[in-house]
Amino acid sequence: MSLDIIQVGLGPIGVAMARKAVARGHRVVGGVDTNPALLGKSLAEVLGCPARGHVVGTPEEAPAGDVALVTTVSDLGRVVATCIPFLRRGVAVVSTCEELIYPWKSLPTESRTLDEAARMGGVACLGTGINPGFVLDYLPVILSAPVEEVRSLRAWRVVDAGLRRGPLQKKVGAGLTPAEFAARVAQGGFGHRGFMESLHLLCAAFGLDTAGATTFIEPVISERAIATEHATVAIGSVAGIHQGASDASGRIQLDLKMYVGALNPADVVEIEGTPRIRVEVQGGYHGDIATCAIALNAAEKIRRAGPGLRTMLDMPALCAPFARE
Amino acid sequence: MSLDIIQVGLGPIGVAMARKAVARGHRVVGGVDTNPALLGKSLAEVLGCPARGHVVGTPEEAPAGDVALVTTVSDLGRVVATCIPFLRRGVAVVSTCEELIYPWKSLPTESRTLDEAARMGGVACLGTGINPGFVLDYLPVILSAPVEEVRSLRAWRVVDAGLRRGPLQKKVGAGLTPAEFAARVAQGGFGHRGFMESLHLLCAAFGLDTAGATTFIEPVISERAIATEHATVAIGSVAGIHQGASDASGRIQLDLKMYVGALNPADVVEIEGTPRIRVEVQGGYHGDIATCAIALNAAEKIRRAGPGLRTMLDMPALCAPFARE
Repeated sequence: MSLDIIQVGLGPIGVAMARKAVARGHRVVGGVDTNPALLGKSLAEVLGCPARGHVVGTPEEAPAGDVALVTTVSDLGRVVATCIPFLRRGVAVVSTCEELIYPWKSLPTESRTLDEAARMGGVACLGTGINPGFVLDYLPVILSAPVEEVRSLRAWRVVDAGLRRGPLQKKVGAGLTPAEFAARVAQGGFGHRGFMESLHLLCAAFGLDTAGATTFIEPVISERAIATEHATVAIGSVAGIHQGASDASGRIQLDLKMYVGALNPADVVEIEGTPRIRVEVQGGYHGDIATCAIALNAAEKIRRAGPGLRTMLDMPALCAPFARE
Repeated sequence: MSLDIIQVGLGPIGVAMARKAVARGHRVVGGVDTNPALLGKSLAEVLGCPARGHVVGTPEEAPAGDVALVTTVSDLGRVVATCIPFLRRGVAVVSTCEELIYPWKSLPTESRTLDEAARMGGVACLGTGINPGFVLDYLPVILSAPVEEVRSLRAWRVVDAGLRRGPLQKKVGAGLTPAEFAARVAQGGFGHRGFMESLHLLCAAFGLDTAGATTFIEPVISERAIATEHATVAIGSVAGIHQGASDASGRIQLDLKMYVGALNPADVVEIEGTPRIRVEVQGGYHGDIATCAIALNAAEKIRRAGPGLRTMLDMPALCAPFARE
């Protein structure tokens, strides 16, 4: 089943996603970006692969299609404004916007607006990704499927930021002094986004209260000197970020360390219950590749989610394509 | 959301499941079993927990309800006959019958009959369990969700049959001589059921051809003397069973060892793809507990699967209940 895709956001992730969609046999029929350098350019030229039409600046100018892949910004308020014209016209939305993974608690008004637009258009709006979207929220839920009763749940990631893009190393504060790190935190908007939304999704799945949930953010201080292509980290300076979130009862605990030179990177889920389960994805999923992949795999099943603002909990089993022999 | 449940099959698994359903706040409103010793008995007495009515001998005599939990026999032909009256009357079915996990290839006629009855009643019919139903089929699909492309997939279980019920130890041939084991295999119907159906479900998810799929069954010969409560295994005799299945291209490989005294029991999924993934559930899921749990967790979401003969691939995310604080 081949989809007509509108790629919204033509940065590195968006371009990679559109190219992969075409490689899978889908058609890219439209592209949206606010970057003046791209406006009016041939989409085929921007993507470097077969595609139809030119880059337009607003969702309203985009042609009709099956799914809009929205990879623009992290700010949910702005993403909502981008999604609504698509949803109202009956174009489903799959987005990697972190807070869209479970926006009902953090931004109830925006969530209702999205839900209404999606129902009006008879299509689904879904936020997905690897984190948030899978490792710390959807996967723990799925792993609980054969469990009789869950007493507590811990999920954590250790990510070697040194193996990732420069922007990510910057995002986690690699190379900052502890004082600079503290200033960034105080300033707000720093750190990995969507962390609380992962907790909200888990609480929604398990029927737990989100009131009183807590979160923390602190630096990982480097015990050795490390130089990557993008950052230089001295002993005693910041290698990256350590974030955690917990529900009020402390029975759900999420933890994320993303730092340059991380030892034993892994994605781990531990469920204390009947039975006890510990699952470790050795090395961990690779953020950029996996986010791109899960968004495309979700787009291929998005029609089956039913109309409205949906979450990964509503989706049928997503599945990767098998390589041709 | 509390369900009215009809428990069909009142053997050890069925009784355990019904009791757990009641402990979760569901109501058991009917019970069906062909055992003359149970017929007409108070269901509350048979289950040892609050329940309504008496044990009846046929699905037609059972009262109305939301879901029939069918834990009778492994033979799909007989299970189909049991399910149809429920489905036609609008009672959804969740069953642990192994071959119901993906019956479309093995038994297309029976599958169509079930599908038609379920659509007529506007309800779903689902086969689930831990194996088949989760470890070797659903879980590998879910783990592929953030994968760009799968090149090959291996999933295997090593189960210590010595830690399980007597019937299971007997089922895997513990204590037989190699010649007796070979005779049982030649006789047919021996070994773990639903193995090929797990492969069929994977092939359906990944869009692979099932033609030319192969399977094998061989004994695990014991290298030491082991005595359990239920079986005595001498050196050189059969400790249990080793089964495998593969698609024609060999890119999907399933493997199951269930034997008394198994070393390092575990459930493992390996996906060769972008990225490469290896997931190990240490110790593995416990068959009986997990099958019971996943069936109840599926029953609670079965309305959302839509009408017809469904598979785990169609289900939204299943989820265990969280313990009360």
